[in-house]
Amino acid sequence: MNLSELIKSNSERKYFAVYPENPKAYDEAAQAAGLAAFQARFNTNYSFIDDNATNFIGEEVSPYLQTGIGVKYAQYDVPTLVHNASAAFNIWKKADLDLRIKVLANSLERVKERFFEMAYSTMHTTGQSFLMSFQASGPHACDRALEVLATAYQQMTVYPSNVVWTKNMGKFDLSLNKNFKAIPKGVSLAIGCSTFPTWNSVPGIYASLVTGNTVIVKPHPKAVYPIAIFIDELKQELKANGLPTTVIQLAIDSSDQPLAKVLAENEQVKMIDYTGGNLMGDYIESLNKTCFTEKSGINSVILESVKTIDPVAQNIAFSASLYSGQMCTAPQNIYVPADGITTEEGTLSFDEVKDKIIASVSGLLLNPKAGAPTLGAIQNDATSKRIEEVKGKYPSQVQLNDLKIDNAEFENARIKSVNVLVVDAKDESIYLKEYFGPLICIVKTESKDQSIALAKHSAEKNGAITCLAFCTDAKRMELIEEEMNSVFTPVSFNFTGAAFVNQHAAWSDLHVSGGNPSGNASFTNADFINKRYIWIGNRYML
Amino acid sequence: MNLSELIKSNSERKYFAVYPENPKAYDEAAQAAGLAAFQARFNTNYSFIDDNATNFIGEEVSPYLQTGIGVKYAQYDVPTLVHNASAAFNIWKKADLDLRIKVLANSLERVKERFFEMAYSTMHTTGQSFLMSFQASGPHACDRALEVLATAYQQMTVYPSNVVWTKNMGKFDLSLNKNFKAIPKGVSLAIGCSTFPTWNSVPGIYASLVTGNTVIVKPHPKAVYPIAIFIDELKQELKANGLPTTVIQLAIDSSDQPLAKVLAENEQVKMIDYTGGNLMGDYIESLNKTCFTEKSGINSVILESVKTIDPVAQNIAFSASLYSGQMCTAPQNIYVPADGITTEEGTLSFDEVKDKIIASVSGLLLNPKAGAPTLGAIQNDATSKRIEEVKGKYPSQVQLNDLKIDNAEFENARIKSVNVLVVDAKDESIYLKEYFGPLICIVKTESKDQSIALAKHSAEKNGAITCLAFCTDAKRMELIEEEMNSVFTPVSFNFTGAAFVNQHAAWSDLHVSGGNPSGNASFTNADFINKRYIWIGNRYML
Repeated sequence: MNLSELIKSNSERKYFAVYPENPKAYDEAAQAAGLAAFQARFNTNYSFIDDNATNFIGEEVSPYLQTGIGVKYAQYDVPTLVHNASAAFNIWKKADLDLRIKVLANSLERVKERFFEMAYSTMHTTGQSFLMSFQASGPHACDRALEVLATAYQQMTVYPSNVVWTKNMGKFDLSLNKNFKAIPKGVSLAIGCSTFPTWNSVPGIYASLVTGNTVIVKPHPKAVYPIAIFIDELKQELKANGLPTTVIQLAIDSSDQPLAKVLAENEQVKMIDYTGGNLMGDYIESLNKTCFTEKSGINSVILESVKTIDPVAQNIAFSASLYSGQMCTAPQNIYVPADGITTEEGTLSFDEVKDKIIASVSGLLLNPKAGAPTLGAIQNDATSKRIEEVKGKYPSQVQLNDLKIDNAEFENARIKSVNVLVVDAKDESIYLKEYFGPLICIVKTESKDQSIALAKHSAEKNGAITCLAFCTDAKRMELIEEEMNSVFTPVSFNFTGAAFVNQHAAWSDLHVSGGNPSGNASFTNADFINKRYIWIGNRYML
Repeated sequence: MNLSELIKSNSERKYFAVYPENPKAYDEAAQAAGLAAFQARFNTNYSFIDDNATNFIGEEVSPYLQTGIGVKYAQYDVPTLVHNASAAFNIWKKADLDLRIKVLANSLERVKERFFEMAYSTMHTTGQSFLMSFQASGPHACDRALEVLATAYQQMTVYPSNVVWTKNMGKFDLSLNKNFKAIPKGVSLAIGCSTFPTWNSVPGIYASLVTGNTVIVKPHPKAVYPIAIFIDELKQELKANGLPTTVIQLAIDSSDQPLAKVLAENEQVKMIDYTGGNLMGDYIESLNKTCFTEKSGINSVILESVKTIDPVAQNIAFSASLYSGQMCTAPQNIYVPADGITTEEGTLSFDEVKDKIIASVSGLLLNPKAGAPTLGAIQNDATSKRIEEVKGKYPSQVQLNDLKIDNAEFENARIKSVNVLVVDAKDESIYLKEYFGPLICIVKTESKDQSIALAKHSAEKNGAITCLAFCTDAKRMELIEEEMNSVFTPVSFNFTGAAFVNQHAAWSDLHVSGGNPSGNASFTNADFINKRYIWIGNRYML
């Protein structure tokens, strides 16, 4: 069954995962070829098939090498981009849904052939480890796109295209021809982030495209290459089908002259998909356009009872360390009652719990085989600087300071180990802020109930994408679930071993609920698709 | 098959119309009993089963009698209403979806027993004719509620409640229990209008209720009785099922001390359904809450070619006259090219077309059998005054002034016939405004293309719920449809005989597109349901 057929067969659906996430499942020679392709791109212009610009710019820097990779992209001004997108819209919107699905599904198959180049380009722009780069930017991003296409197919076929409607009027029947059309809204803008350049942007891009809208992609200027691969393959597939290649366009900008706001405010831009910080996200939401945001939040850990502490402390340590806390699902605040937690071997005091967590972080990071691959690299200097500032401001709370971690493969990698603050529940001004990057706060609370109340308050006020809880009492698990769910935050209970809170699939785990300040949309909801078009029913007298 | 079963059997669905819209299809004695029930309510307090207030207020006036009907409703302050709604929410949100559907479907069956009382109370608050009152407030409102329940059942069962999720991790399988929950948002507010007190409010009320939210209904103070019947029956059905009767509450207010803004701004109120004018509607949309609005708009008629003019002019005359133009689907502006329109009998000049329309309006209204029942009565004096003001401002454009129409049954009925202005396309300041009530503008355009351009511009800028077009050329029909659809306005083509543009079923005709300033929501879209709750997925380590 090809992808288009798979998309149309609802019975086969639930959660797509058609792209193996293990790199070894792919052709043996593919990894070396992908690396070579990536390296060949150094210090060159990445031209698309339709580029006619004379100026090329780019400022991507490898967090592992700490040197620029020198890849440049064709620069267009906003009026040109918007004009192209509007012109292409008039053709693309008339393309049959089946054709749009075919083109978009084929583009994923094309991207699959470049998963290893994608992985290396993600690694050397975001600082993710090789494995995370491979999985997140390649298979997982494509699976997300596939889910979007399937949801769109389902949503856009809920009404018949044409019906004859008949109503008995007593002595005669009144009949009308009716047609039902999903009219797309127009030009869409996708604003990407620096840490997950495809995983976060691909769902919105494919959702706008499949519904008949055209898309301008404005990636973070430091993380362009991975999404450029999608754009490249989309353009080629569009051309192969005789469709305008400007259905999808790259808007390259620079840190000095950012274009996001100029594009967002353009009156031809009707929809915006955004991933990034709150300040810009709140601005996007204030524009009164159709928008889908994933902003920041503070993820909590509620720790109140466990079987044994070691696997729990190790689980927390790993989740906090993975990609140096630069994941939207990374935990930040760990709430532990002042009178400790219960275990099968008796009560552990707050200090014992706190020490266990700190020891687990150190143990993981100082393990030469585990530390560097778990942390990856810091995407940009600002993240490291912010964390140093926090530590400078609250020196007496710092209980685990930077450890020296070496990366054997990349001696210049920008590495920062996980820092630990230990704070009191009353110090809300310290811990009720998002610290993006490798910093966690262990919060001493008055009671288990205060832990829940603080985690709930934080999710409601600051947003939260997820919550990790450790609790062995069924009644209290129910309470934690109900309280956190009431502020639209999902809970993962008692994760140990290979289960980590960070792993949050878009569909299977309904990633981002859209119900708290961490974002206004959920990929999994039908409205992620159907807010991009308007159903219209026309009537004809027979 | 009972209603709950019908709702759950998707195969039976498409467009519900389970309640006959012909009054004769109901029990023969029901009409007299309904009238008696209505009359027995005059000058009494309408108490609900849970009322404990001491103060009762009411200011409804019959547009047919022009005397107050003296029905009063228990008055509660906003903190009490919100407190009750929040308390009931904590119970109602935990009720099983099947139970909620059963209660809500049963309430519709209860309301059905009061369709005639509903009809008379609608007639004597809104000024609608008896037949429209019966159909709109009874069967059509109940059918809309039923559609909402069916859509909700469909949407809220898209995810399984529980699954065991297993992922192969190479040497072992990782398994988690996952649950998926649709978490309701909280207290919902439904703000009603004076002309369609149930038809417009029932979809939002039932959508909030079925998804587990509680509802405060704030009707227009001059049109309370019809929706009070729904509230009454809902409370009784809730009580019969041991559920809190305050799941639904009436917030009665007065013209002097309106409560809509106080309620809308209350922080416990999370969602708002609104029907009414633009000023208030824009304010509701600005509150940054989940909201569903149906505001005003200007509906256009595009007249460019017909077979014969008479049935067309008659169709326009009837649509403009029905309920004195107080329907949200009533046409206002009729665009006719200066060089006339083509017919099978040759070209008709602009003046000939204009005269035909005016003659058809006069002919219809002066027909003693048709005039009064078609017009109904004017809901309130302000509507009549506004139209007199317009005529006073543009005296030279008035080509059909008030006709004297008598209502044989109600000699005091507040009647105003359809007034006709004839204007030039360049006089946008005259006709590009909504004139709610019995006033139409015949607009002389430079060309057919200008007619389309003006209708499109008007829909985009002022909103439009529908558009009526007369055109016999297939290519131009396609053009009209495409242009009007691009501003998210549906088109009805070549309606004559028993087909009228005003008749716009919520589901079969996708009433209100949500894509232009006439409203931000569509009853027919999945997001009319699923914006009222948030999907959450929790995970448990096995």
